Amino acid sequence: MTTASRRAAIEVLTTNTPDTHTMRALIKHHAGPELQFVSDRPKPVPGPRDVLIRVKKAGICGTDRHIWEWDAWAAGRIPVGIVTGHEFVGTIEAVGSAVSKYQPGLRVSAEGHITSWTDYNSRTGNAHIASDTRIVGIDRDGCFGEYVVVPEENVWPVHASIPDKVAAVLDPLGNAVHTVMAAGVSAKSVLITGTGIIGLMAVTVAKAAGAGRIFATDVDPKRRALAKKLGAVEAFDPRNDAWIAEVRKACRGEGADVLLEMSGAEPALAQGLAGLRNGGTAALLGLFKGPIKFDINSLVIFKGCTVLGINGRKMFETWYQMEELLLSGKLELDDIITHEFPLEQFKKAHETMISGEGIKVVLNIGG
Amino acid sequence: MTTASRRAAIEVLTTNTPDTHTMRALIKHHAGPELQFVSDRPKPVPGPRDVLIRVKKAGICGTDRHIWEWDAWAAGRIPVGIVTGHEFVGTIEAVGSAVSKYQPGLRVSAEGHITSWTDYNSRTGNAHIASDTRIVGIDRDGCFGEYVVVPEENVWPVHASIPDKVAAVLDPLGNAVHTVMAAGVSAKSVLITGTGIIGLMAVTVAKAAGAGRIFATDVDPKRRALAKKLGAVEAFDPRNDAWIAEVRKACRGEGADVLLEMSGAEPALAQGLAGLRNGGTAALLGLFKGPIKFDINSLVIFKGCTVLGINGRKMFETWYQMEELLLSGKLELDDIITHEFPLEQFKKAHETMISGEGIKVVLNIGG
Amino acid sequence: MTTASRRAAIEVLTTNTPDTHTMRALIKHHAGPELQFVSDRPKPVPGPRDVLIRVKKAGICGTDRHIWEWDAWAAGRIPVGIVTGHEFVGTIEAVGSAVSKYQPGLRVSAEGHITSWTDYNSRTGNAHIASDTRIVGIDRDGCFGEYVVVPEENVWPVHASIPDKVAAVLDPLGNAVHTVMAAGVSAKSVLITGTGIIGLMAVTVAKAAGAGRIFATDVDPKRRALAKKLGAVEAFDPRNDAWIAEVRKACRGEGADVLLEMSGAEPALAQGLAGLRNGGTAALLGLFKGPIKFDINSLVIFKGCTVLGINGRKMFETWYQMEELLLSGKLELDDIITHEFPLEQFKKAHETMISGEGIKVVLNIGG
Amino acid sequence: MTTASRRAAIEVLTTNTPDTHTMRALIKHHAGPELQFVSDRPKPVPGPRDVLIRVKKAGICGTDRHIWEWDAWAAGRIPVGIVTGHEFVGTIEAVGSAVSKYQPGLRVSAEGHITSWTDYNSRTGNAHIASDTRIVGIDRDGCFGEYVVVPEENVWPVHASIPDKVAAVLDPLGNAVHTVMAAGVSAKSVLITGTGIIGLMAVTVAKAAGAGRIFATDVDPKRRALAKKLGAVEAFDPRNDAWIAEVRKACRGEGADVLLEMSGAEPALAQGLAGLRNGGTAALLGLFKGPIKFDINSLVIFKGCTVLGINGRKMFETWYQMEELLLSGKLELDDIITHEFPLEQFKKAHETMISGEGIKVVLNIGG
Repeated sequence: MTTASRRAAIEVLTTNTPDTHTMRALIKHHAGPELQFVSDRPKPVPGPRDVLIRVKKAGICGTDRHIWEWDAWAAGRIPVGIVTGHEFVGTIEAVGSAVSKYQPGLRVSAEGHITSWTDYNSRTGNAHIASDTRIVGIDRDGCFGEYVVVPEENVWPVHASIPDKVAAVLDPLGNAVHTVMAAGVSAKSVLITGTGIIGLMAVTVAKAAGAGRIFATDVDPKRRALAKKLGAVEAFDPRNDAWIAEVRKACRGEGADVLLEMSGAEPALAQGLAGLRNGGTAALLGLFKGPIKFDINSLVIFKGCTVLGINGRKMFETWYQMEELLLSGKLELDDIITHEFPLEQFKKAHETMISGEGIKVVLNIGG
Repeated sequence: MTTASRRAAIEVLTTNTPDTHTMRALIKHHAGPELQFVSDRPKPVPGPRDVLIRVKKAGICGTDRHIWEWDAWAAGRIPVGIVTGHEFVGTIEAVGSAVSKYQPGLRVSAEGHITSWTDYNSRTGNAHIASDTRIVGIDRDGCFGEYVVVPEENVWPVHASIPDKVAAVLDPLGNAVHTVMAAGVSAKSVLITGTGIIGLMAVTVAKAAGAGRIFATDVDPKRRALAKKLGAVEAFDPRNDAWIAEVRKACRGEGADVLLEMSGAEPALAQGLAGLRNGGTAALLGLFKGPIKFDINSLVIFKGCTVLGINGRKMFETWYQMEELLLSGKLELDDIITHEFPLEQFKKAHETMISGEGIKVVLNIGG
Repeated sequence: MTTASRRAAIEVLTTNTPDTHTMRALIKHHAGPELQFVSDRPKPVPGPRDVLIRVKKAGICGTDRHIWEWDAWAAGRIPVGIVTGHEFVGTIEAVGSAVSKYQPGLRVSAEGHITSWTDYNSRTGNAHIASDTRIVGIDRDGCFGEYVVVPEENVWPVHASIPDKVAAVLDPLGNAVHTVMAAGVSAKSVLITGTGIIGLMAVTVAKAAGAGRIFATDVDPKRRALAKKLGAVEAFDPRNDAWIAEVRKACRGEGADVLLEMSGAEPALAQGLAGLRNGGTAALLGLFKGPIKFDINSLVIFKGCTVLGINGRKMFETWYQMEELLLSGKLELDDIITHEFPLEQFKKAHETMISGEGIKVVLNIGG
Repeated sequence: MTTASRRAAIEVLTTNTPDTHTMRALIKHHAGPELQFVSDRPKPVPGPRDVLIRVKKAGICGTDRHIWEWDAWAAGRIPVGIVTGHEFVGTIEAVGSAVSKYQPGLRVSAEGHITSWTDYNSRTGNAHIASDTRIVGIDRDGCFGEYVVVPEENVWPVHASIPDKVAAVLDPLGNAVHTVMAAGVSAKSVLITGTGIIGLMAVTVAKAAGAGRIFATDVDPKRRALAKKLGAVEAFDPRNDAWIAEVRKACRGEGADVLLEMSGAEPALAQGLAGLRNGGTAALLGLFKGPIKFDINSLVIFKGCTVLGINGRKMFETWYQMEELLLSGKLELDDIITHEFPLEQFKKAHETMISGEGIKVVLNIGG
């Protein structure tokens, strides 16, 4: 960015929005369930290295459900008073004085993991597991409002060919892409335990990213049907263990090459590893309710398996991979992004997601 | 294999084919062009660790064209008198006395690279680049006959769901799979220079194995059209350099993530590397006419690129990958395997391949 | 091997040892503790694809301690009556009729994992985790006798520069090398939990294989002192958790790059993972007493760690790596191979190992 | 960095150096050979995101020789008038207004490759091959002066245990570390063609990073002797091809596992690849005089080799690896950093390096 254009950007910041100092937003108004809609939230002001983004659409994440329901995790982490939400697409409205990379007007999404970029992982291409990560919409104000501020390093310019509805959910789609790519599915048989939102995304991502046959499990028959529609050759109800033998049989009697654990259900881990071949790779994204007990000798050590902990999305390798998959036209997201609601209907939106009637639900916030 | 079943197998060898000591075959009858059809070739006898395979179908390879035309390479390598051919599917007819893995009746293909399994690469999963490799149909009798003998280690049992026509060409398909998988195409943009038989296979393999957008080049408009039908988003005539800028522009102005060099044309290497982004990976399968001259400083070193020499197929990782891709139903080979001829029409078969009228041409040899 | 030399080899088998049909050996004579020395064990006869090896020296493994003490694992697996032992060096005495790779007179060790070489892992360079593995000295006769038979595929020719004492323990040294190389220690800080025999070997192997600083833990002060002598910068008593903070502090406050879990102690896994940085790699060789309970969310998933199950040694990549390290002169094994006893003093040998007075104890069996 | 400490830092910038607006420096004063010493160079002023570093010591690079001699490359790239030099250690004197990571007083080195951090490689851990790289001391003012300015992202805090003399040459040492680590030398035999400054560093780095046996070549007997002192088992004069057979013989008759090409001599590439085993990895750091001609079919493709172009150092994975190797005490640099001169003796310093009398020569610039 030239000095001239930077000056122009600052001018935008100071002159273009003279009398709109407040905005509509959803806030965690008290230490309890639900969110509150307010129309007089002060519009955030970007620091010297931040960008101010006018939010167009935002997705409701499984994490937002925890915040909505105010479970123990949420009560322990979410500061009362913040604007929540961390999946979105919008347009840069203004940039801080020291911002060098972007200018107002750019359509962007953003990575919600914020770090100081000083530790080992941040400086070696793995900032998604930085030791000082703070998350937009969880540890500080998020995107369920007309404006959100993020550091310029977190900005992701969105390719023109990607529609807003999809661009709004790059964050969870990125979880699926990161899991799939970390495991490596190209020309491999893949077992996905759990087809919730990200598990379903993982089916279409795995297929697009080169998986051979995909086997899925889920307790919900509707999700199983959708998994098959999206590319799974078979989808099993995990409550009957017989499926493990079926997967093994289909895979030379040895087991699948790759396991993607997306459920966070304790039995799923042992089942999934039992369905994995010796030397296979398991990528774990689902979070378990607490410490788990399992036979690591026979399920991991003797089998010579690789187990990968998956957190967030690589900054920004995952985003590039996601863009390439989207540009190739291989991802099928229409059956996954099921509902859109205006911001004011946030209650119905959350209920649609929580009830399971919808899968990925998007809030329409700004123009 | 139990002792009893082994004894049964040997019995088959000695009693089941009492009066058929000869077979039909194509031989390189003289130090010159073409092959000769004979009907009295002695049927090969397996050694203690070999299997005897009754050939059903065999593919004609680009290498067979060199042998047919008797070019300098063929004249320097092919022993006059051998049965040629190295791509095939058939049925195990008999096994040697010390064979432990397979029994007669099994439908199989085979890896044509024969090694003593004593060097570093053979003992570490990379027998395809063993230092003592001899090749079926090139250095010893091959599969353009009713029977062929290979060591049991070279046998590949063919999955029931794979049709004979496809099973006959697993060898060249394996070249494409090995190249694609060595480079790693999952969620990457891929540039393929040269869409001859294996280049075309590489298009459908790359798409199935997870490539994002695929760009191809070829001088032949028919091949370019087929490349697009098989999944390339664009196919360029490489004689006009402008395509390089187009590929780079489509890929963020930086270049494609992966180059698969399938042409063996000297300009294609520099063009392809120019179209590759910094840090990209180039897998080279095409063989050049001789030593090549190129600007390795700017095309490889400054760019921080990785260049992979590709030879044959991994024994047997590539075969497993190929099977998984075939089982997934993602590979489109119908437009690539264009012709089949009975063995006796070998002349027409070779001419169909050499003229470019056909792409992959298959000989029907046995029942 | 030529036909002539093979014939010569068979002749050796039938004529060179005319009247010595029996041998001295240690057998698991009853379903209870200890072993029995016998002098009239029938000498084994190689099958067509086997080699007969005259054993010179054999190492006593931790597994042999389980067999000696006849614990639950041993009682459930070891067939009464077998010759035990699986680490050795010797000389090929005779080869089977279909053996093609080796000739009598060659000094060799051997990989004890026997497979049919038909499954995925066997055919892709990972036979050490084949699904049908049977182990020499555990599932069939082993090397605590004057002769042992193994398939020719299992033979490892020993480089002339490697002394017998070391060649006798390539199997456990291979466990250490496999663990170290699977994790990847080059230019990395390494934490080793547990410095028993293989843990101590892992210290010198990790140092030789390129580790930066090595931190070790063990409850035994003698072992800790030896770990430091072999290259650890610090060795901690794991019963006081404070060491974890020390390791993390030494490693930028983030933790070590690599964890090698060699103890099989349940607390060591959680401690070790707590001492590992985000994104670090943990290789698990130690076997736990049973199913373990641990906080996989915070120790693996959130941290984005990689956990590798380690079993045996790669066949034969590990053996090549081990040879190269031995040829480089970097490995310090003199303090690890502490005792040698003649076969007849097997009781004292086992007791020296079990008491902890010795570390690696070797039996001298043949000339 | 807190707001308070940032304010303090800015104060330093404006008050601590009130009357010293000029500095001593070496400048490329005209479009011809040598450099000029000046004592009135305006002290550089950091931008909002830059740090101002007071230089203590700086190394003279091979690139500085090209600049000194004003060869064709230098004439085509170096802007007349700049301060040259790009290897150094110093202390942060002041930081720009938007700097968040570092404070004055910190001892630092810096990565000389400056990028806008917007392209694929910059955002995925490979900024060293960013497409818009500009280099300190080559494209803009460098460190052969009392002060140098770099963006805060380029700063590398130097561990307290690393002496200034070593910290001054982390840039070229990083070239060696990057080459060695990219190739992967752990438990491998390594061939290094060319033992100039970085080739010699590569010998000690490869040994420390886990190489087995190291073989080196150089035309200079003094360098060969030093290579052996630093850890090479053999050092050959490459002008007699017989050494290739010796290396191959020492490596099972197959060749070395790894080639590090450090000479930029055209014959070295073909020789080195001939000395490499099938499936081996070659990392190319040396820059060739121009386009090279070589038999890529037989030296790369048939052999199934991997060729890596190496440029700069990974930002910042290489720096972490280097730190770990230095902390381990394994690197031997005393025989490589041979001379130190005060800045004013820059002419003698350059001549000592150019004549070959010295290897790495360091300029002492500030306190």
